[in-house]
Amino acid sequence: MSAAGPGESVLTRAVRILEAFSQDEPALPVSEIARRAGLHVATASRLIAELVAHGLLVRDEQRLVRVGVRLWELASRASPALTLRERAMPFLEGVHDVVGHHVQLAVRDGEEVLFVERLSTPGSVVNYTRIAGRLPLHASSSGLVLLAHAPAMLREQVVEAGPLHAYTTATPAVPGRLRAQLAAIRRDGYAYCPGFVHEDALGIAAPVRDGTGDVVAAVGVVVPNDAAARTHLPVVRTAARGISRALGARPADAQGRGG
Amino acid sequence: MSAAGPGESVLTRAVRILEAFSQDEPALPVSEIARRAGLHVATASRLIAELVAHGLLVRDEQRLVRVGVRLWELASRASPALTLRERAMPFLEGVHDVVGHHVQLAVRDGEEVLFVERLSTPGSVVNYTRIAGRLPLHASSSGLVLLAHAPAMLREQVVEAGPLHAYTTATPAVPGRLRAQLAAIRRDGYAYCPGFVHEDALGIAAPVRDGTGDVVAAVGVVVPNDAAARTHLPVVRTAARGISRALGARPADAQGRGG
Repeated sequence: MSAAGPGESVLTRAVRILEAFSQDEPALPVSEIARRAGLHVATASRLIAELVAHGLLVRDEQRLVRVGVRLWELASRASPALTLRERAMPFLEGVHDVVGHHVQLAVRDGEEVLFVERLSTPGSVVNYTRIAGRLPLHASSSGLVLLAHAPAMLREQVVEAGPLHAYTTATPAVPGRLRAQLAAIRRDGYAYCPGFVHEDALGIAAPVRDGTGDVVAAVGVVVPNDAAARTHLPVVRTAARGISRALGARPADAQGRGG
Repeated sequence: MSAAGPGESVLTRAVRILEAFSQDEPALPVSEIARRAGLHVATASRLIAELVAHGLLVRDEQRLVRVGVRLWELASRASPALTLRERAMPFLEGVHDVVGHHVQLAVRDGEEVLFVERLSTPGSVVNYTRIAGRLPLHASSSGLVLLAHAPAMLREQVVEAGPLHAYTTATPAVPGRLRAQLAAIRRDGYAYCPGFVHEDALGIAAPVRDGTGDVVAAVGVVVPNDAAARTHLPVVRTAARGISRALGARPADAQGRGG
């Protein structure tokens, strides 16, 4: 996405500056931000100063730069992710009370799954998801639910994209197996994924629909990969339907149109 | 904050475009965004197109513009608010299970309180706070806790700022009463605010400290304004200390240095 004019290039550079930060490295010196954003230190420095003036970035006592709470506020207050999350939260809390471990809510953004909420119990089974973190669509139970209900063209694109990452031997990383998996998810109304992302973990997810009947999110749990996991299935499916109803889905749609 | 050069002005205009959206009006036509941002439609249109290209804004089926999930992701993944919120969440859930109504977590941003989390039960008592919403520091229990522990200069600035908004007759909107209130909060270690924001509601909040002993947040509940409210006080104070411990505060600091 190259710059078409002076206006465009400033926004592009500002976005690259914001992209320099991560959950593991929330505080960076200006020089490191410049390096990651591919900008001259002077250019980065000037843009950072302006972002700081707007409160989108802040400087801490060690002169390290961080993402400001103002950016979070601007992004959150009108965010569809926040509305979804607010409606879903009582259901997520209920599931978390009963199942423990990890409960999460995810949306599809392009060819990735983006986790917008996660409730975890300390000492739970391994889980690679993070709030505002991403995974490819073909591996996790939430991603597979979202991929199964994505537009056919995008679905084929992902399936045919060529080598998909196999996290474990159970990951549906080859086209035939992935296609069968997606068909099963549409037929059954849920994804049940033992060891797809990590051998010790098992993901269960179900689709959340809005008032138009479209799948807008996936709700799921990540629990230990053992025989007891299947007992959590009704809880996840019930939560998915409850959240769908809270979003205005009609009963038939909340249950899924695919059966 | 006027523009010093072409680079600066683009960012300033982009921020004004983002500021046009709110929780009540998350989807706007380009012309309305231009009006709110004080920009020519052509200028707004060009900037919006670029923000859409970066995924920071999205266009829906009705050609209305919304905040994109990508902006939320950039703002959230390295946000100190998110880290605080993640550490606090198990405590907030516990308080919500026991107290019901509204449980919230707030930080100070300048002379306002910004709510970074809220768990609510449907049908609870009236509450003006919203996630990513703001209130002045002098009215709500969370705001008063944050003001009581703010730097002395900022505290005096707010107290002496002149006419503070009196939401009810109980709001500490005059300097003498506000000062006494803040001193009591520092002495007692909590704020107990019957009817300060709305006659029917009562707020209770306590300070959350980090590993350096600084007050970084306030945790509180909003419950009906009646005699039973006081029974929730130990729950709120315990949660505040628990969150402080989870943030690395030492026991003495978690209890507050003021006594």
